[in-house]
Amino acid sequence: MQLESRIESALTRALAPPTNAVTPPLLRSALTHAVFPGGARIRPTILLSVALACGDDRPEVSDAAAAALELIHCASLAHDDLPAFDNADLRRGKPSLHRAHGEPLAILAGDSLIVLAFETLAAAGELAPDRAVKLITALGRRTGAVQGICAGQAWESEPAVDLQAYHLAKTGALFIAATQMGALSTGADPDPWEDLGRLIGEAFQVADDLKDALLSSEATGKTSGRDAVLHRPSAVQSMGVVGATKHLQDILSGAIASIPSCPGEAKLAQMVQAHARRIMDIPAAARG
Amino acid sequence: MQLESRIESALTRALAPPTNAVTPPLLRSALTHAVFPGGARIRPTILLSVALACGDDRPEVSDAAAAALELIHCASLAHDDLPAFDNADLRRGKPSLHRAHGEPLAILAGDSLIVLAFETLAAAGELAPDRAVKLITALGRRTGAVQGICAGQAWESEPAVDLQAYHLAKTGALFIAATQMGALSTGADPDPWEDLGRLIGEAFQVADDLKDALLSSEATGKTSGRDAVLHRPSAVQSMGVVGATKHLQDILSGAIASIPSCPGEAKLAQMVQAHARRIMDIPAAARG
Repeated sequence: MQLESRIESALTRALAPPTNAVTPPLLRSALTHAVFPGGARIRPTILLSVALACGDDRPEVSDAAAAALELIHCASLAHDDLPAFDNADLRRGKPSLHRAHGEPLAILAGDSLIVLAFETLAAAGELAPDRAVKLITALGRRTGAVQGICAGQAWESEPAVDLQAYHLAKTGALFIAATQMGALSTGADPDPWEDLGRLIGEAFQVADDLKDALLSSEATGKTSGRDAVLHRPSAVQSMGVVGATKHLQDILSGAIASIPSCPGEAKLAQMVQAHARRIMDIPAAARG
Repeated sequence: MQLESRIESALTRALAPPTNAVTPPLLRSALTHAVFPGGARIRPTILLSVALACGDDRPEVSDAAAAALELIHCASLAHDDLPAFDNADLRRGKPSLHRAHGEPLAILAGDSLIVLAFETLAAAGELAPDRAVKLITALGRRTGAVQGICAGQAWESEPAVDLQAYHLAKTGALFIAATQMGALSTGADPDPWEDLGRLIGEAFQVADDLKDALLSSEATGKTSGRDAVLHRPSAVQSMGVVGATKHLQDILSGAIASIPSCPGEAKLAQMVQAHARRIMDIPAAARG
Protein backbone atom coordinates (compact mmCIF):
# COMPACT_ATOMS: atom_id res chain seq x y z
CA MET A 1 0.00 0.00 0.00
CA GLN A 2 1.33 3.39 -0.97
CA LEU A 3 0.68 5.22 2.30
CA GLU A 4 2.38 2.46 4.24
CA SER A 5 5.57 2.69 2.20
CA ARG A 6 5.57 6.51 2.39
CA ILE A 7 5.35 6.29 6.19
CA GLU A 8 8.07 3.65 6.56
CA SER A 9 10.40 5.54 4.20
CA ALA A 10 9.82 8.82 6.03
CA LEU A 11 10.55 7.16 9.38
CA THR A 12 13.68 5.49 8.02
CA ARG A 13 14.93 8.84 6.68
CA ALA A 14 14.14 10.57 9.99
CA LEU A 15 16.08 7.99 11.98
CA ALA A 16 19.11 7.78 9.66
CA PRO A 17 22.08 9.28 11.49
CA PRO A 18 23.91 12.10 9.67
CA THR A 19 27.13 11.02 8.00
CA ASN A 20 30.30 11.47 10.08
CA ALA A 21 28.37 11.40 13.32
CA VAL A 22 28.05 8.61 15.84
CA THR A 23 25.02 7.84 17.97
CA PRO A 24 25.96 5.77 21.04
CA PRO A 25 25.37 2.22 19.62
CA LEU A 26 23.04 0.98 22.37
CA LEU A 27 20.91 4.13 22.12
CA ARG A 28 20.77 3.62 18.34
CA SER A 29 19.48 0.04 18.93
CA ALA A 30 16.90 1.33 21.39
CA LEU A 31 15.64 3.93 18.89
CA THR A 32 15.27 1.26 16.21
CA HIS A 33 13.48 -1.05 18.66
CA ALA A 34 11.07 1.74 19.59
CA VAL A 35 10.13 2.60 15.99
CA PHE A 36 10.52 -0.60 13.91
CA PRO A 37 8.60 -2.70 13.18
CA GLY A 38 5.63 -0.47 13.87
CA GLY A 39 2.07 -1.14 14.89
CA ALA A 40 -0.77 -0.11 12.58
CA ARG A 41 0.82 3.36 12.00
CA ILE A 42 -2.75 4.60 12.24
CA ARG A 43 -1.95 8.22 13.18
CA PRO A 44 0.40 8.92 10.22
CA THR A 45 -2.02 7.04 7.93
CA ILE A 46 -4.81 9.42 8.97
CA LEU A 47 -2.46 12.39 8.57
CA LEU A 48 -1.49 11.44 5.01
CA SER A 49 -5.10 10.59 4.14
CA VAL A 50 -6.21 14.08 5.20
CA ALA A 51 -3.25 15.64 3.35
CA LEU A 52 -4.26 13.75 0.19
CA ALA A 53 -7.88 14.83 0.64
CA CYS A 54 -6.60 18.43 0.78
CA GLY A 55 -4.47 18.08 -2.38
CA ASP A 56 -1.08 17.08 -0.86
CA ASP A 57 0.81 19.69 -2.90
CA ARG A 58 4.04 19.28 -0.86
CA PRO A 59 4.46 15.53 -0.17
CA GLU A 60 7.90 16.12 1.40
CA VAL A 61 6.17 18.25 4.05
CA SER A 62 3.33 15.78 4.70
CA ASP A 63 5.83 12.88 4.83
CA ALA A 64 7.86 14.76 7.46
CA ALA A 65 4.66 15.53 9.40
CA ALA A 66 3.62 11.86 9.30
CA ALA A 67 7.04 10.72 10.52
CA ALA A 68 7.12 13.36 13.27
CA LEU A 69 3.70 12.36 14.57
CA GLU A 70 4.58 8.66 14.64
CA LEU A 71 7.90 9.42 16.43
CA ILE A 72 5.97 11.22 19.19
CA HIS A 73 3.62 8.24 19.43
CA CYS A 74 6.58 5.81 19.70
CA ALA A 75 8.16 8.05 22.36
CA SER A 76 4.94 8.00 24.37
CA LEU A 77 4.77 4.19 24.21
CA ALA A 78 8.39 3.93 25.41
CA HIS A 79 7.72 6.20 28.40
CA ASP A 80 4.20 4.94 29.22
CA ASP A 81 5.52 1.36 29.42
CA LEU A 82 8.15 2.31 32.06
CA PRO A 83 7.92 0.81 35.57
CA ALA A 84 6.85 4.23 36.92
CA PHE A 85 3.71 4.03 34.73
CA ASP A 86 2.25 0.84 33.22
CA ASN A 87 5.28 -1.37 33.92
CA ALA A 88 4.36 -3.28 30.76
CA ASP A 89 6.44 -6.25 29.63
CA LEU A 90 5.11 -6.45 26.08
CA ARG A 91 4.59 -3.97 23.27
CA ARG A 92 3.80 -4.72 19.65
CA GLY A 93 4.35 -8.42 20.32
CA LYS A 94 7.92 -8.06 21.62
CA PRO A 95 9.50 -6.99 24.92
CA SER A 96 8.78 -3.37 25.84
CA LEU A 97 11.71 -1.00 25.38
CA HIS A 98 12.88 -0.94 29.01
CA ARG A 99 12.61 -4.74 29.18
CA ALA A 100 14.85 -5.05 26.11
CA HIS A 101 17.28 -2.17 26.70
CA GLY A 102 16.95 -1.16 30.36
CA GLU A 103 15.32 1.88 31.92
CA PRO A 104 18.05 4.47 31.26
CA LEU A 105 18.04 3.84 27.50
CA ALA A 106 14.23 3.62 27.40
CA ILE A 107 13.98 7.06 29.01
CA LEU A 108 16.67 8.51 26.72
CA ALA A 109 15.22 6.92 23.57
CA GLY A 110 11.84 8.47 24.41
CA ASP A 111 13.45 11.87 24.96
CA SER A 112 15.44 11.53 21.72
CA LEU A 113 12.36 10.62 19.70
CA ILE A 114 10.50 13.71 20.96
CA VAL A 115 13.46 15.85 19.88
CA LEU A 116 13.73 14.02 16.55
CA ALA A 117 10.06 14.70 15.79
CA PHE A 118 10.61 18.45 15.98
CA GLU A 119 13.93 18.22 14.11
CA THR A 120 12.16 16.31 11.33
CA LEU A 121 9.58 19.08 10.95
CA ALA A 122 12.28 21.76 11.08
CA ALA A 123 14.20 19.97 8.31
CA ALA A 124 11.08 20.12 6.12
CA GLY A 125 10.94 23.80 7.03
CA GLU A 126 14.01 24.68 5.03
CA LEU A 127 11.77 24.81 1.97
CA ALA A 128 8.46 25.72 3.64
CA PRO A 129 9.25 27.58 6.89
CA ASP A 130 5.70 28.89 7.42
CA ARG A 131 4.12 25.46 7.22
CA ALA A 132 6.85 23.93 9.39
CA VAL A 133 6.34 26.48 12.15
CA LYS A 134 2.57 25.83 12.16
CA LEU A 135 3.14 22.06 12.18
CA ILE A 136 5.57 22.37 15.11
CA THR A 137 3.02 24.50 17.00
CA ALA A 138 0.24 21.97 16.32
CA LEU A 139 2.35 18.95 17.28
CA GLY A 140 3.70 20.69 20.39
CA ARG A 141 0.21 21.60 21.56
CA ARG A 142 -1.03 18.00 21.25
CA THR A 143 2.08 16.54 22.91
CA GLY A 144 2.68 18.88 25.85
CA ALA A 145 1.48 19.57 29.38
CA VAL A 146 -1.74 21.45 28.68
CA GLN A 147 -3.80 19.69 25.99
CA GLY A 148 -1.30 17.05 24.95
CA ILE A 149 -0.48 13.44 25.72
CA CYS A 150 1.84 14.51 28.58
CA ALA A 151 -1.23 16.08 30.22
CA GLY A 152 -3.21 12.92 29.45
CA GLN A 153 -0.70 10.66 31.17
CA ALA A 154 -0.34 13.14 34.06
CA TRP A 155 -4.09 13.04 34.81
CA GLU A 156 -3.42 9.47 36.04
CA SER A 157 -1.33 10.98 38.87
CA GLU A 158 -4.13 13.32 39.99
CA PRO A 159 -6.38 12.43 42.95
CA ALA A 160 -9.50 13.35 40.88
CA VAL A 161 -9.81 12.72 37.13
CA ASP A 162 -12.17 14.39 34.66
CA LEU A 163 -12.81 11.39 32.38
CA GLN A 164 -13.47 13.48 29.27
CA ALA A 165 -10.43 15.75 29.69
CA TYR A 166 -8.32 12.66 30.43
CA HIS A 167 -9.33 10.76 27.27
CA LEU A 168 -9.21 13.88 25.11
CA ALA A 169 -5.60 14.55 26.13
CA LYS A 170 -4.37 10.97 26.48
CA THR A 171 -5.76 9.45 23.27
CA GLY A 172 -7.57 12.21 21.40
CA ALA A 173 -4.65 14.62 21.25
CA LEU A 174 -2.54 12.74 18.69
CA PHE A 175 -5.58 11.99 16.50
CA ILE A 176 -6.44 15.68 16.47
CA ALA A 177 -2.78 16.31 15.62
CA ALA A 178 -3.14 13.77 12.78
CA THR A 179 -6.07 15.45 11.05
CA GLN A 180 -4.89 19.01 11.71
CA MET A 181 -1.28 18.34 10.65
CA GLY A 182 -2.58 16.64 7.50
CA ALA A 183 -4.42 19.85 6.64
CA LEU A 184 -1.51 22.09 7.68
CA SER A 185 0.92 20.10 5.49
CA THR A 186 -1.00 21.38 2.48
CA GLY A 187 -1.40 24.93 3.77
CA ALA A 188 -5.10 24.35 4.61
CA ASP A 189 -6.89 25.72 7.70
CA PRO A 190 -6.62 23.11 10.49
CA ASP A 191 -9.67 24.26 12.54
CA PRO A 192 -12.42 22.43 10.58
CA TRP A 193 -10.41 19.19 11.00
CA GLU A 194 -10.42 19.13 14.80
CA ASP A 195 -13.76 17.28 15.18
CA LEU A 196 -12.73 14.43 12.88
CA GLY A 197 -9.52 13.89 14.86
CA ARG A 198 -11.31 14.07 18.19
CA LEU A 199 -14.00 11.58 17.13
CA ILE A 200 -11.52 9.11 15.64
CA GLY A 201 -9.58 9.40 18.90
CA GLU A 202 -12.71 8.65 20.93
CA ALA A 203 -13.46 5.65 18.72
CA PHE A 204 -9.96 4.28 19.23
CA GLN A 205 -10.17 4.84 22.97
CA VAL A 206 -13.42 2.87 23.23
CA ALA A 207 -12.06 0.18 20.85
CA ASP A 208 -8.91 -0.04 22.98
CA ASP A 209 -10.97 -0.39 26.16
CA LEU A 210 -12.92 -3.22 24.47
CA LYS A 211 -9.71 -4.89 23.29
CA ASP A 212 -8.15 -4.61 26.75
CA ALA A 213 -11.24 -6.18 28.33
CA LEU A 214 -11.95 -8.87 25.70
CA LEU A 215 -8.73 -10.02 24.08
CA SER A 216 -5.66 -11.88 25.36
CA SER A 217 -2.12 -10.43 25.49
CA GLU A 218 -1.23 -12.77 22.64
CA ALA A 219 -3.86 -11.19 20.39
CA THR A 220 -3.08 -7.56 21.28
CA GLY A 221 0.72 -7.88 21.47
CA LYS A 222 0.79 -6.01 24.77
CA THR A 223 -0.03 -6.73 28.40
CA SER A 224 -3.86 -7.06 28.66
CA GLY A 225 -6.29 -6.30 31.46
CA ARG A 226 -4.18 -3.35 32.64
CA ASP A 227 -7.14 -0.95 32.86
CA ALA A 228 -8.83 -3.03 35.54
CA VAL A 229 -5.57 -3.82 37.36
CA LEU A 230 -4.58 -0.13 37.39
CA HIS A 231 -8.15 1.04 38.22
CA ARG A 232 -8.00 3.16 35.10
CA PRO A 233 -11.24 4.71 33.86
CA SER A 234 -12.60 2.84 30.82
CA ALA A 235 -15.74 2.86 28.66
CA VAL A 236 -16.27 -0.87 29.29
CA GLN A 237 -16.16 -0.25 33.03
CA SER A 238 -18.78 2.52 32.84
CA MET A 239 -21.09 1.18 30.04
CA GLY A 240 -20.47 -2.56 29.82
CA VAL A 241 -19.39 -4.33 26.62
CA VAL A 242 -22.70 -3.92 24.77
CA GLY A 243 -23.07 -0.26 25.73
CA ALA A 244 -19.49 0.50 24.74
CA THR A 245 -19.94 -1.25 21.36
CA LYS A 246 -23.06 0.82 20.61
CA HIS A 247 -21.25 3.99 21.71
CA LEU A 248 -18.36 3.10 19.36
CA GLN A 249 -20.74 2.79 16.40
CA ASP A 250 -22.28 6.21 17.13
CA ILE A 251 -18.88 7.87 17.37
CA LEU A 252 -17.76 6.41 14.03
CA SER A 253 -20.91 7.64 12.28
CA GLY A 254 -20.28 11.09 13.73
CA ALA A 255 -16.68 11.00 12.54
CA ILE A 256 -17.69 10.31 8.94
CA ALA A 257 -20.32 13.06 9.09
CA SER A 258 -17.75 15.56 10.41
CA ILE A 259 -15.37 15.40 7.41
CA PRO A 260 -15.00 18.97 6.12
CA SER A 261 -15.65 19.80 2.50
CA CYS A 262 -12.42 19.27 0.53
CA PRO A 263 -11.33 17.94 -2.90
CA GLY A 264 -10.91 14.35 -1.64
CA GLU A 265 -13.88 14.26 0.74
CA ALA A 266 -15.59 11.15 -0.71
CA LYS A 267 -12.42 9.06 -0.78
CA LEU A 268 -11.56 10.07 2.79
CA ALA A 269 -15.05 9.08 3.97
CA GLN A 270 -14.53 5.66 2.35
CA MET A 271 -11.22 5.24 4.15
CA VAL A 272 -12.68 6.14 7.54
CA GLN A 273 -15.55 3.73 6.87
CA ALA A 274 -13.09 0.92 6.05
CA HIS A 275 -11.18 1.59 9.28
CA ALA A 276 -14.48 1.72 11.17
CA ARG A 277 -15.38 -1.76 9.90
CA ARG A 278 -11.97 -3.05 11.02
CA ILE A 279 -12.45 -1.53 14.47
CA MET A 280 -15.97 -2.96 14.82
CA ASP A 281 -14.63 -6.44 14.04
CA ILE A 282 -12.88 -6.52 17.41
CA PRO A 283 -15.88 -6.78 19.76
CA ALA A 284 -17.76 -8.93 17.20
CA ALA A 285 -14.90 -11.45 16.96
CA ALA A 286 -14.29 -11.48 20.71
CA ARG A 287 -17.95 -12.13 21.47
CA GLY A 288 -17.90 -14.95 18.91
CA MET B 1 20.80 42.81 36.03
CA GLN B 2 19.05 43.23 32.71
CA LEU B 3 19.85 39.81 31.19
CA GLU B 4 18.64 38.06 34.32
CA SER B 5 15.23 39.74 34.20
CA ARG B 6 14.91 39.10 30.45
CA ILE B 7 15.54 35.40 31.06
CA GLU B 8 13.14 35.07 34.02
CA SER B 9 10.40 36.96 32.15
CA ALA B 10 10.86 34.81 29.04
CA LEU B 11 10.66 31.62 31.12
CA THR B 12 7.57 32.87 32.96
CA ARG B 13 5.88 33.67 29.64
CA ALA B 14 6.84 30.27 28.22
CA LEU B 15 5.39 28.41 31.20
CA ALA B 16 2.17 30.45 31.47
CA PRO B 17 -0.75 28.18 30.52
CA PRO B 18 -3.03 29.43 27.73
CA THR B 19 -6.30 30.91 28.96
CA ASN B 20 -9.25 28.48 29.11
CA ALA B 21 -6.97 25.47 29.32
CA VAL B 22 -6.11 23.37 32.33
CA THR B 23 -2.80 21.66 33.00
CA PRO B 24 -3.18 18.78 35.48
CA PRO B 25 -2.43 20.65 38.74
CA LEU B 26 0.31 18.33 40.02
CA LEU B 27 2.09 18.40 36.64
CA ARG B 28 1.86 22.22 36.71
CA SER B 29 3.55 22.19 40.17
CA ALA B 30 6.24 19.85 38.89
CA LEU B 31 6.98 22.13 35.91
CA THR B 32 7.30 25.13 38.21
CA HIS B 33 9.55 23.16 40.57
CA ALA B 34 11.77 22.14 37.67
CA VAL B 35 12.24 25.67 36.31
CA PHE B 36 11.94 28.09 39.29
CA PRO B 37 13.96 29.24 41.06
CA GLY B 38 16.75 28.58 38.61
CA GLY B 39 20.45 28.00 39.01
CA ALA B 40 22.90 30.44 37.43
CA ARG B 41 20.93 30.44 34.12
CA ILE B 42 24.36 30.39 32.51
CA ARG B 43 23.32 28.95 29.12
CA PRO B 44 20.61 31.55 28.37
CA THR B 45 22.94 34.26 29.70
CA ILE B 46 25.58 33.22 27.17
CA LEU B 47 22.93 33.04 24.44
CA LEU B 48 21.67 36.57 25.10
CA SER B 49 25.24 37.89 25.44
CA VAL B 50 26.11 36.52 21.99
CA ALA B 51 22.83 37.87 20.57
CA LEU B 52 23.66 41.33 21.98
CA ALA B 53 27.19 41.11 20.57
CA CYS B 54 25.59 40.42 17.16
CA GLY B 55 23.18 43.37 17.39
CA ASP B 56 20.08 41.67 18.92
CA ASP B 57 17.73 43.18 16.33
CA ARG B 58 14.80 40.91 17.33
CA PRO B 59 14.82 40.65 21.15
CA GLU B 60 11.54 38.69 21.13
CA VAL B 61 13.32 35.99 19.12
CA SER B 62 16.45 35.91 21.31
CA ASP B 63 14.28 35.89 24.46
CA ALA B 64 12.37 32.87 23.13
CA ALA B 65 15.66 31.16 22.23
CA ALA B 66 17.04 31.82 25.72
CA ALA B 67 13.91 30.41 27.36
CA ALA B 68 13.87 27.36 25.06
CA LEU B 69 17.49 26.53 25.82
CA GLU B 70 16.99 26.82 29.58
CA LEU B 71 13.83 24.65 29.39
CA ILE B 72 15.86 21.89 27.70
CA HIS B 73 18.51 22.24 30.42
CA CYS B 74 15.84 21.98 33.17
CA ALA B 75 14.35 18.92 31.42
CA SER B 76 17.76 17.25 31.34
CA LEU B 77 18.26 17.88 35.07
CA ALA B 78 14.84 16.38 35.85
CA HIS B 79 15.63 13.22 33.88
CA ASP B 80 19.32 12.90 34.83
CA ASP B 81 18.37 13.01 38.53
CA LEU B 82 15.97 10.03 38.17
CA PRO B 83 16.71 6.77 40.01
CA ALA B 84 17.62 5.13 36.66
CA PHE B 85 20.50 7.62 36.27
CA ASP B 86 22.06 9.65 39.10
CA ASN B 87 19.35 8.92 41.69
CA ALA B 88 20.10 12.36 43.11
CA ASP B 89 18.22 13.64 46.17
CA LEU B 90 19.17 17.30 45.83
CA ARG B 91 19.13 19.83 43.01
CA ARG B 92 19.58 23.60 43.27
CA GLY B 93 19.47 23.32 47.07
CA LYS B 94 16.06 21.63 47.22
CA PRO B 95 14.73 18.09 46.70
CA SER B 96 15.21 16.81 43.17
CA LEU B 97 12.04 16.69 41.08
CA HIS B 98 11.26 12.99 41.55
CA ARG B 99 11.91 13.30 45.30
CA ALA B 100 9.41 16.16 45.51
CA HIS B 101 6.78 14.99 42.98
CA GLY B 102 7.39 11.28 42.36
CA GLU B 103 8.90 9.53 39.36
CA PRO B 104 5.86 9.61 37.02
CA LEU B 105 5.53 13.39 37.22
CA ALA B 106 9.32 13.89 37.01
CA ILE B 107 9.41 11.91 33.76
CA LEU B 108 6.36 13.74 32.37
CA ALA B 109 7.61 17.16 33.44
CA GLY B 110 10.90 16.49 31.62
CA ASP B 111 9.03 15.38 28.51
CA SER B 112 6.73 18.41 28.70
CA LEU B 113 9.67 20.83 29.05
CA ILE B 114 11.33 19.39 25.93
CA VAL B 115 8.08 19.91 24.02
CA LEU B 116 7.63 23.40 25.49
CA ALA B 117 11.11 24.41 24.34
CA PHE B 118 10.22 23.72 20.71
CA GLU B 119 6.75 25.27 21.10
CA THR B 120 8.39 28.43 22.48
CA LEU B 121 10.63 28.71 19.42
CA ALA B 122 7.71 28.01 17.08
CA ALA B 123 5.68 30.77 18.77
CA ALA B 124 8.51 33.23 18.04
CA GLY B 125 8.42 31.90 14.48
CA GLU B 126 5.06 33.46 13.74
CA LEU B 127 6.94 36.69 13.02
CA ALA B 128 10.29 35.24 11.94
CA PRO B 129 9.70 31.73 10.55
CA ASP B 130 13.14 31.40 8.92
CA ARG B 131 15.00 32.17 12.12
CA ALA B 132 12.67 29.95 14.17
CA VAL B 133 13.25 26.95 11.89
CA LYS B 134 17.03 27.40 12.13
CA LEU B 135 16.83 27.77 15.91
CA ILE B 136 14.73 24.60 16.20
CA THR B 137 17.23 22.73 14.03
CA ALA B 138 20.16 23.98 16.13
CA LEU B 139 18.49 23.18 19.47
CA GLY B 140 17.32 19.77 18.24
CA ARG B 141 20.81 18.84 17.09
CA ARG B 142 22.35 19.70 20.47
CA THR B 143 19.60 17.94 22.43
CA GLY B 144 19.11 14.69 20.50
CA ALA B 145 20.61 11.24 20.10
CA VAL B 146 23.53 12.04 17.81
CA GLN B 147 25.44 15.09 19.02
CA GLY B 148 23.11 16.20 21.78
CA ILE B 149 22.73 15.79 25.53
CA CYS B 150 20.66 12.61 25.04
CA ALA B 151 23.72 11.10 23.34
CA GLY B 152 25.90 12.42 26.15
CA GLN B 153 23.83 10.75 28.84
CA ALA B 154 23.54 7.56 26.77
CA TRP B 155 27.33 7.20 26.52
CA GLU B 156 27.16 6.35 30.26
CA SER B 157 25.26 3.17 29.31
CA GLU B 158 27.92 2.04 26.82
CA PRO B 159 30.54 -0.53 27.77
CA ALA B 160 33.31 1.68 26.30
CA VAL B 161 33.27 5.51 26.46
CA ASP B 162 35.17 7.97 24.29
CA LEU B 163 35.84 10.64 26.94
CA GLN B 164 35.96 13.53 24.45
CA ALA B 165 32.76 12.54 22.60
CA TYR B 166 31.08 12.00 25.96
CA HIS B 167 31.91 15.44 27.38
CA LEU B 168 31.25 17.18 24.07
CA ALA B 169 27.73 15.74 23.92
CA LYS B 170 26.91 15.72 27.62
CA THR B 171 28.06 19.21 28.62
CA GLY B 172 29.40 20.88 25.49
CA ALA B 173 26.26 20.46 23.41
CA LEU B 174 24.07 23.01 25.21
CA PHE B 175 26.92 25.55 25.39
CA ILE B 176 27.40 25.23 21.62
CA ALA B 177 23.62 25.64 21.33
CA ALA B 178 23.93 28.79 23.48
CA THR B 179 26.47 30.57 21.31
CA GLN B 180 25.03 29.38 18.00
CA MET B 181 21.41 30.15 18.94
CA GLY B 182 22.53 33.61 20.13
CA ALA B 183 23.94 34.24 16.65
CA LEU B 184 20.95 32.66 14.88
CA SER B 185 18.50 34.82 16.87
CA THR B 186 19.95 37.83 15.06
CA GLY B 187 20.14 36.17 11.66
CA ALA B 188 23.95 35.76 11.92
CA ASP B 189 25.92 32.72 10.71
CA PRO B 190 26.21 30.25 13.62
CA ASP B 191 29.31 28.38 12.38
CA PRO B 192 31.99 30.79 13.67
CA TRP B 193 30.40 30.58 17.13
CA GLU B 194 30.82 26.83 17.62
CA ASP B 195 34.34 27.01 19.10
CA LEU B 196 33.36 29.53 21.79
CA GLY B 197 30.46 27.35 22.90
CA ARG B 198 32.57 24.19 22.87
CA LEU B 199 35.36 25.80 24.92
CA ILE B 200 32.98 27.34 27.48
CA GLY B 201 31.39 23.89 27.77
CA GLU B 202 34.77 22.27 28.38
CA ALA B 203 35.57 24.89 31.02
CA PHE B 204 32.29 24.22 32.82
CA GLN B 205 32.84 20.48 32.65
CA VAL B 206 36.28 20.77 34.27
CA ALA B 207 34.96 23.32 36.81
CA ASP B 208 32.09 20.94 37.61
CA ASP B 209 34.50 18.04 38.10
CA LEU B 210 36.54 20.23 40.48
CA LYS B 211 33.39 21.30 42.36
CA ASP B 212 32.18 17.71 42.63
CA ALA B 213 35.54 16.62 44.03
CA LEU B 214 36.25 19.60 46.32
CA LEU B 215 33.00 21.05 47.64
CA SER B 216 30.27 19.71 49.94
CA SER B 217 26.66 19.08 48.89
CA GLU B 218 25.69 22.11 50.98
CA ALA B 219 27.89 24.40 48.89
CA THR B 220 26.85 23.00 45.49
CA GLY B 221 23.14 22.47 46.27
CA LYS B 222 23.26 18.97 44.78
CA THR B 223 24.56 15.57 45.80
CA SER B 224 28.41 15.71 45.76
CA GLY B 225 31.02 13.06 45.04
CA ARG B 226 28.75 11.35 42.48
CA ASP B 227 31.49 11.14 39.82
CA ALA B 228 33.65 8.89 41.99
CA VAL B 229 30.68 6.87 43.32
CA LEU B 230 29.36 6.29 39.79
CA HIS B 231 32.86 5.68 38.34
CA ARG B 232 32.16 8.47 35.92
CA PRO B 233 35.10 9.80 33.90
CA SER B 234 36.30 13.18 35.25
CA ALA B 235 39.15 15.62 34.63
CA VAL B 236 40.12 15.50 38.31
CA GLN B 237 40.35 11.73 38.13
CA SER B 238 42.65 11.82 35.10
CA MET B 239 44.78 14.96 35.84
CA GLY B 240 44.50 15.57 39.59
CA VAL B 241 43.28 18.85 41.09
CA VAL B 242 46.33 20.93 40.11
CA GLY B 243 46.43 19.59 36.55
CA ALA B 244 42.71 20.12 36.11
CA THR B 245 42.97 23.70 37.41
CA LYS B 246 45.77 24.53 34.94
CA HIS B 247 43.76 22.88 32.14
CA LEU B 248 40.76 25.02 33.06
CA GLN B 249 42.83 28.21 32.77
CA ASP B 250 44.08 27.21 29.31
CA ILE B 251 40.56 26.46 28.06
CA LEU B 252 39.24 29.83 29.26
CA SER B 253 42.07 31.71 27.50
CA GLY B 254 41.27 29.79 24.32
CA ALA B 255 37.57 30.65 24.68
CA ILE B 256 38.25 34.37 24.86
CA ALA B 257 40.60 34.14 21.86
CA SER B 258 37.94 32.29 19.82
CA ILE B 259 35.29 35.06 19.91
CA PRO B 260 34.42 35.86 16.29
CA SER B 261 34.60 39.40 15.00
CA CYS B 262 31.24 41.13 15.67
CA PRO B 263 29.92 44.55 16.73
CA GLY B 264 30.01 43.74 20.46
CA GLU B 265 33.21 41.66 20.47
CA ALA B 266 35.05 43.63 23.21
CA LYS B 267 32.11 43.63 25.62
CA LEU B 268 31.54 39.92 25.11
CA ALA B 269 35.22 39.20 25.81
CA GLN B 270 34.88 41.16 29.08
CA MET B 271 31.83 39.13 30.06
CA VAL B 272 33.55 35.80 29.38
CA GLN B 273 36.57 37.03 31.37
CA ALA B 274 34.33 37.96 34.34
CA HIS B 275 32.73 34.50 34.24
CA ALA B 276 36.17 32.93 33.95
CA ARG B 277 37.28 34.69 37.14
CA ARG B 278 34.18 33.43 38.94
CA ILE B 279 34.86 29.88 37.76
CA MET B 280 38.52 30.03 38.80
CA ASP B 281 37.48 31.12 42.32
CA ILE B 282 36.10 27.63 42.97
CA PRO B 283 39.34 25.63 43.10
CA ALA B 284 41.15 28.57 44.73
CA ALA B 285 38.57 28.84 47.54
CA ALA B 286 38.36 25.10 48.03
CA ARG B 287 42.13 24.77 48.35
CA GLY B 288 42.05 27.53 50.97
